[in-house]
Order: sequence, then C-alpha cells, then structure tokens
Amino acid sequence: MKKIAVLLAGSGVYDGSEIHEAVFALLSIERAGASYQCFAPDKDQLHVIDHTTGEAAPEKRNVLVESARIARGNVKPVSALSVEAFDALLIPGGFGAAKNLNQWAIKGPAGELDPQVKRAIVEFHAAGKPLCGLCMGPTVIAQALGDAASVELTVGTTEEPSPYDIAGIHAGMQSLGARPILRTVRQVAVDREHKVVTAPCYMMEATIVDVHDNVQQAVNALVALL
Amino acid sequence: MKKIAVLLAGSGVYDGSEIHEAVFALLSIERAGASYQCFAPDKDQLHVIDHTTGEAAPEKRNVLVESARIARGNVKPVSALSVEAFDALLIPGGFGAAKNLNQWAIKGPAGELDPQVKRAIVEFHAAGKPLCGLCMGPTVIAQALGDAASVELTVGTTEEPSPYDIAGIHAGMQSLGARPILRTVRQVAVDREHKVVTAPCYMMEATIVDVHDNVQQAVNALVALL
Repeated sequence: MKKIAVLLAGSGVYDGSEIHEAVFALLSIERAGASYQCFAPDKDQLHVIDHTTGEAAPEKRNVLVESARIARGNVKPVSALSVEAFDALLIPGGFGAAKNLNQWAIKGPAGELDPQVKRAIVEFHAAGKPLCGLCMGPTVIAQALGDAASVELTVGTTEEPSPYDIAGIHAGMQSLGARPILRTVRQVAVDREHKVVTAPCYMMEATIVDVHDNVQQAVNALVALL
Repeated sequence: MKKIAVLLAGSGVYDGSEIHEAVFALLSIERAGASYQCFAPDKDQLHVIDHTTGEAAPEKRNVLVESARIARGNVKPVSALSVEAFDALLIPGGFGAAKNLNQWAIKGPAGELDPQVKRAIVEFHAAGKPLCGLCMGPTVIAQALGDAASVELTVGTTEEPSPYDIAGIHAGMQSLGARPILRTVRQVAVDREHKVVTAPCYMMEATIVDVHDNVQQAVNALVALL
C-alpha cells in the first residue's frame, strides 16, 4: 500500500490548515487505496484567529497540537518526516500554510520558509517522489523548490470569482522560478516532469462539494503518479 | 431547498465536535441538495484537551468560537436557532457532544443537558421535523426527548469492535426512555414514527471512509424524511 505524508499547519482556515480540504485529503487518500500519516511543525502558530470575528486573539497555540484535532491525535513532528518512509507528500491549504509553513500571508514570496518543511519538500522532489499542494499549499512548494525546478502549478484562475488575489500570488510564485497556470476549482494542474499536482480548492469561490471533488481529483492525480 | 441546522460542540474529537463527522455531514447535506447552517452554544467548553496527549490543558475556549473553525466562520448561537427557519436538525458526535451539549462523558444520563440545546430538540420534535444524531449525538436526543418519546436509536453494536462501552451507553439511553438498537458502522437506525435518524460513525472501530459513508447514509435517510 502506498503511503502519503500529509503536512498540516494547524486546524482552522484563518490560522491553520483549512479543515475541509485536510479532511477531504485524508478521505480521498484512503479511498484511492493508499494510507496517510499526518505531520506538522512543532512550534507556535504565527497567531490565533477568532474564527467568528477574524480578529487575532491574545493566545498562543502550537501548530502540531492543533493539527492533532484534524488527525484525531495521530500527528508527528515534521522533523521526524523521513522521505524513505513515504511515497508522496501532500500539503492542504488554509492561511496556516501561508502563516506557519511559509509567511506568504504577511510577507509574500520574501517570507521565511520553515526549514524542516523546506527540507522535506526538497528531499521528496530529489527522490523523484510526487508532491501535491492544495489551495495556498502550492506557494510552499514553489518557495521550497525555487529556481531549482521550474514547476508548473496553480492556485486558481483570474477568469472565475475568487476572494483572493490569484494574479498576485501567481506573480509571486513566478518570481521564485515557478510557472503558474490558470485552473478553475473543477481542474487540477499536473506537472508530470516534476511530479507536482496542485488544485485551487477554496482559493476560488466554491461550495463544499466543489472543494471535495477538487481535492479528490488532485489526490487521484497524485496517486496516478506513484 | 430544504434547510438543515447543524449543531456543533467545538472542534476536535476529544473536547468538541468530531471534525470528520461534522465535515462529512456538511458535505452530505449539500450533496443531497439541501443547505446547512451551523449553530453552537455560546459558552465555555467543559475543558480543553491537548489532542496529542489526551491530557487537559490549562486553557479556556468558547464552544461557538471553536465551532467556527469547522464552519469557516459561519456559525450562530444555538439560542438563535428558530425551528420555523429549518426543516431538520443534525448533531454530529465527538466528546464535545457529551461534554458541551450534555455531560454524558462525566455524568452519564444523570448529567445536565444544555437548556438551549434541549429547547431546540424538543421544538423540532414537537413540530414533526426530523432529527439526526451521529456517534454520541443520539445521547443528546435521548436526553432531550426523555420519556416523552420512546425513540428508537443507536450508538453502535456490541457485536463488532468498538473503543467505547456501547452496551453501557445504550443502557443509559434506555434509562431515559429511549429504545436503543444495535447498528454497525455500515448501518443507520431510522425511527420513522419519531423521525429520528442515528448512526454509529466513530463509536465503532472505523476508517475515515467507513465514517464518511455512514454519515452520508444517515444524511440521505434524514433528507428522505423531509
């Protein structure tokens, strides 16, 4: 059975992993006949957002500890993620990817990438093992691989409604050496040469069924690369 | 379009709503052609559990605020839940149902039921509108309806592996006037007279695909009662 590492970044769209995307990724992996193990950085979140107001709350939470809510307890530190033990790496979206894995939400492509996250992505890529990024996850992949690989990837399209600045994020990924392409929430981008699958999910205006179907499409494309 | 109120109890299996069950409920509702609105009690959680260790953490969190993580911000206080505005009420499981809605996890059937939760359930039932309880959710329904309705419901079966004391919980629900029946994670219980659908989900040893399919089966049975 193929084993997929899932890299979480907390639990909740505004300061952690987007919960629907993460849960649908775990579901789709198992449905595709593979197994998963969740990982997350063992460090404080950038901040804690009250999801009823969107305002920062005066609290500290740990990325790994909050990620365990999605993983029902079974999550390991990303420092323990060994490329030899897994066949692929998947990164769900949510602001947590852009706040706790890289710092795109506050500094764009100039922000710092978590060193252990970078190590894991670079090692999977170097080993010829496929990567998958959902929603904002592709920015993490673009930043980790940088100029070393001119990866084709997407966070969405400018031709359908999105709550976010798709063109700006694509420009930022391009500045890192990636080749962004436009994809709707009904499509995925598959770079067969670099073995990278990306999908817009909640970067586009989308219903929960749209997002489920987009995640499943991405996971199936990922598993097809194994 | 039929509208289903979903009653959350926080975000995370050990102190809130079980995230997978809640997300699959929202997905299944939309897939069945209905819409959802999330609600939760606006009060402190019983406690906060570190999901990596299972230990209580020295923190306070609000049930409504944490539920907003699953609902992507769109959650209303259960005190604002009007039975006139919805066609059915669904309660996902997780320890939060048994800690923040009722107190089954610490006091069994003798614990207190949140008064607004009780009001909502009693009003839906009195209006002839269907109820659905997943996992530990049925204990909340049994406690709210009590002797007034001898409802047939389930939290699982003693004939397949479960991490929990299914027989004990069934006995507790029976002491409240309900009629518990055995169901596997591949089955749901449908009380057509009282319009109550219940499903074991993670009360049984189950994979994420099992739980998705069980939730979908329950939601489809609920929508069929509308």
